Amino acid sequence: MIRKTRLFTPGPTPLLPAAQFAMAAADIHHRTAEFRAMYTRVLSQLKDFFGTKNDVLILSSSGTGAMEAAVSNLTSPGDRVLVLTAGKFGERWSGIAKAFGCEVDVVSAPYGHTFSIEEVKAALKLETRAIFMQATETSTGVRHCVPAVAKLIKDTHSEALLVVDAITGLGTTHLDMDAWGVDVLIGGSQKSFMIPPGLSFIALSDKAWDRMEASYNPRYYFDLRKERKNARNGESAYTPAVALIAALGAALDYIAGQAATTDNPAGDLVAGRKKLVENAETIAAMTRAAVQALGMTLFAPDAPSAAATAVLPPVGIDSGVIVKELKARFAAVITNGQGEMKGQIFRIAHLGFFDFMDTIAFIGALEQVVMKSFPQPGVQFGSGLIAAQKVYAERSATAAADNQCLCGRTQACCSLK
Amino acid sequence: MIRKTRLFTPGPTPLLPAAQFAMAAADIHHRTAEFRAMYTRVLSQLKDFFGTKNDVLILSSSGTGAMEAAVSNLTSPGDRVLVLTAGKFGERWSGIAKAFGCEVDVVSAPYGHTFSIEEVKAALKLETRAIFMQATETSTGVRHCVPAVAKLIKDTHSEALLVVDAITGLGTTHLDMDAWGVDVLIGGSQKSFMIPPGLSFIALSDKAWDRMEASYNPRYYFDLRKERKNARNGESAYTPAVALIAALGAALDYIAGQAATTDNPAGDLVAGRKKLVENAETIAAMTRAAVQALGMTLFAPDAPSAAATAVLPPVGIDSGVIVKELKARFAAVITNGQGEMKGQIFRIAHLGFFDFMDTIAFIGALEQVVMKSFPQPGVQFGSGLIAAQKVYAERSATAAADNQCLCGRTQACCSLK
Repeated sequence: MIRKTRLFTPGPTPLLPAAQFAMAAADIHHRTAEFRAMYTRVLSQLKDFFGTKNDVLILSSSGTGAMEAAVSNLTSPGDRVLVLTAGKFGERWSGIAKAFGCEVDVVSAPYGHTFSIEEVKAALKLETRAIFMQATETSTGVRHCVPAVAKLIKDTHSEALLVVDAITGLGTTHLDMDAWGVDVLIGGSQKSFMIPPGLSFIALSDKAWDRMEASYNPRYYFDLRKERKNARNGESAYTPAVALIAALGAALDYIAGQAATTDNPAGDLVAGRKKLVENAETIAAMTRAAVQALGMTLFAPDAPSAAATAVLPPVGIDSGVIVKELKARFAAVITNGQGEMKGQIFRIAHLGFFDFMDTIAFIGALEQVVMKSFPQPGVQFGSGLIAAQKVYAERSATAAADNQCLCGRTQACCSLK
Repeated sequence: MIRKTRLFTPGPTPLLPAAQFAMAAADIHHRTAEFRAMYTRVLSQLKDFFGTKNDVLILSSSGTGAMEAAVSNLTSPGDRVLVLTAGKFGERWSGIAKAFGCEVDVVSAPYGHTFSIEEVKAALKLETRAIFMQATETSTGVRHCVPAVAKLIKDTHSEALLVVDAITGLGTTHLDMDAWGVDVLIGGSQKSFMIPPGLSFIALSDKAWDRMEASYNPRYYFDLRKERKNARNGESAYTPAVALIAALGAALDYIAGQAATTDNPAGDLVAGRKKLVENAETIAAMTRAAVQALGMTLFAPDAPSAAATAVLPPVGIDSGVIVKELKARFAAVITNGQGEMKGQIFRIAHLGFFDFMDTIAFIGALEQVVMKSFPQPGVQFGSGLIAAQKVYAERSATAAADNQCLCGRTQACCSLK
């Protein structure tokens, strides 16, 4: 049989054709009026996508580069910071903060879970200069409650900056930077932006920009003051990944176009972002229903993210075998668990350029793998597909699910609305 | 929801990415050594794909251009010819033959059916100079038995040439031109070749080349003698669609690669062609099972082609409504019936670059449309998908279905093997 390679990985994600074409055509120099016009427009679009009036900066780096930029620009050696962690990417915050000489307090939840706001409150000290967290922890498929942490900082009059890695959270959570009171929001190109890896994004509040003036960790490539100064002139401080920026513009146009109307055929990025999140939520809900109907267990049942679903395979089965069989039989690429979770979970992505048909196709392939290699009592052909079909039919017949919290969780969380 | 546009139409069909890239890169002139090397190689590959030792010629035209070339090069005004027809494309043979002054006899089967070899035998006259037919009639989803007609010509020592429009038959039927005794075989680029429209292909037997010398209908652009002379020098008679030829080379490499082995990583076009046909047969079988399980009826149950499946919608439903709903809700593009069949059937393609996941995805979308807009007694979510899943599991667990006839039909046909 023909097998088309399809990514169901939480980054890189499937590429938008219009972005591929823009990338292929991007034969322009980065110190020209042509580039400046494109760059200025893309930077402006990113503000709408981030929900901020402040500058969003583009760095030619992976998302980790923007994480380092947040630490190196906003902390000084000896600063006390609080890291909220429940997986590999939370741990990365600790690693970066320690590398830049911070004293790191940690609130840690077991893999597959999130921390409570009470735990965060207990760990927040007078001298805490920043809180670092993820919006969604990609290694475990968990969603953290960002607005609850923002509210805690506000309620306690803490001087801490709230720094959020939303690399997989952007486009899968209704993040609204300014309204929520997030000080630093970080994204990456190869996620909901539907383009290849190579760009990271970082936006900072006025409070964060003020902090930067007094902080004295070393930085050069990631010096955000220099980057902002250049960005306001339509350029980047150093040679940017031009083709990816062209692709990003095309992708943001596409996302805006998801909210196109007869009166406004170009659509709108704020409304388009909302539709993008709802798309991921629907696909995630279809997937959760299907894997459970196929006799498997959700690894993060209480706080699932819409970015990726982490699944515990049938008892006794190494998750890597499922990853391999999907690749070998159907050319469908998913990811194993990372680090110590390798072999224990597999992860299916929903962020970015996925649709109903991708989802049904993937579940059909997973069902073939389960039925042939890991038959489960009570599971038969159709078990997973029917569950997904019903979720889709319900969600397309009614309004979007009534999320219980700003962060997007449907279970009761902090009940911030 | 995001909706990716997907073609499930019997031409154009989905494009192979490697062919798209080759097409984009094809910035070469057609009177150069570079072009001649590429063209010569592609022409040689086409021989394997057609199953012939004779030249396969490429015309920059739609498939209808190659059909006209067969008539204009091989007939003279007043020639008696026999057209075997069971749909719109059979009728096209009559139209072309009449335009070039032929006296046209017709064996006609009702739409959705094929003719018997006895009917053809009864219509074949001593003076019949050519028989024109389709391998598969795309307008009704029917497969005709080409080898039976070839055998009839041989057994009766008829001087008739057998001219076969295999535009959708190539890559969906195990056509083997020389072995079957087909005199003219015609293909088109936008079908199993996985590239856009714009090229047609025509191969001729020695008997057909001899006939050409004596026939005197007017032809210029489609003069095949001139085209063959140029082709043997690695060029085309007139400016060719260079980018499409580059794409074709990439697609034929891909098809050959379907039969790649460790010892032969480039694969083999004869074996790859066989796999391509089996791929279409599996997808067609999944689709037939699914639409029946969804309460609909096959339009051509006795002689279904693997190129496309024609389906009668539920009683009282205009097939155009299903076409429109699939487009509007899922951006899945199928085709309505053509001509007088418009509104009565819809057609789903299987030829070319389709895989298991495409097929499950399409059936999932069709099931959503049926369940929401045309609920049928006994049909529920999963009805179509389960039927398709079972067909796939059976076919991947066992060897390819044992076709009863060379033409690929599983029902008893002419029992030529």
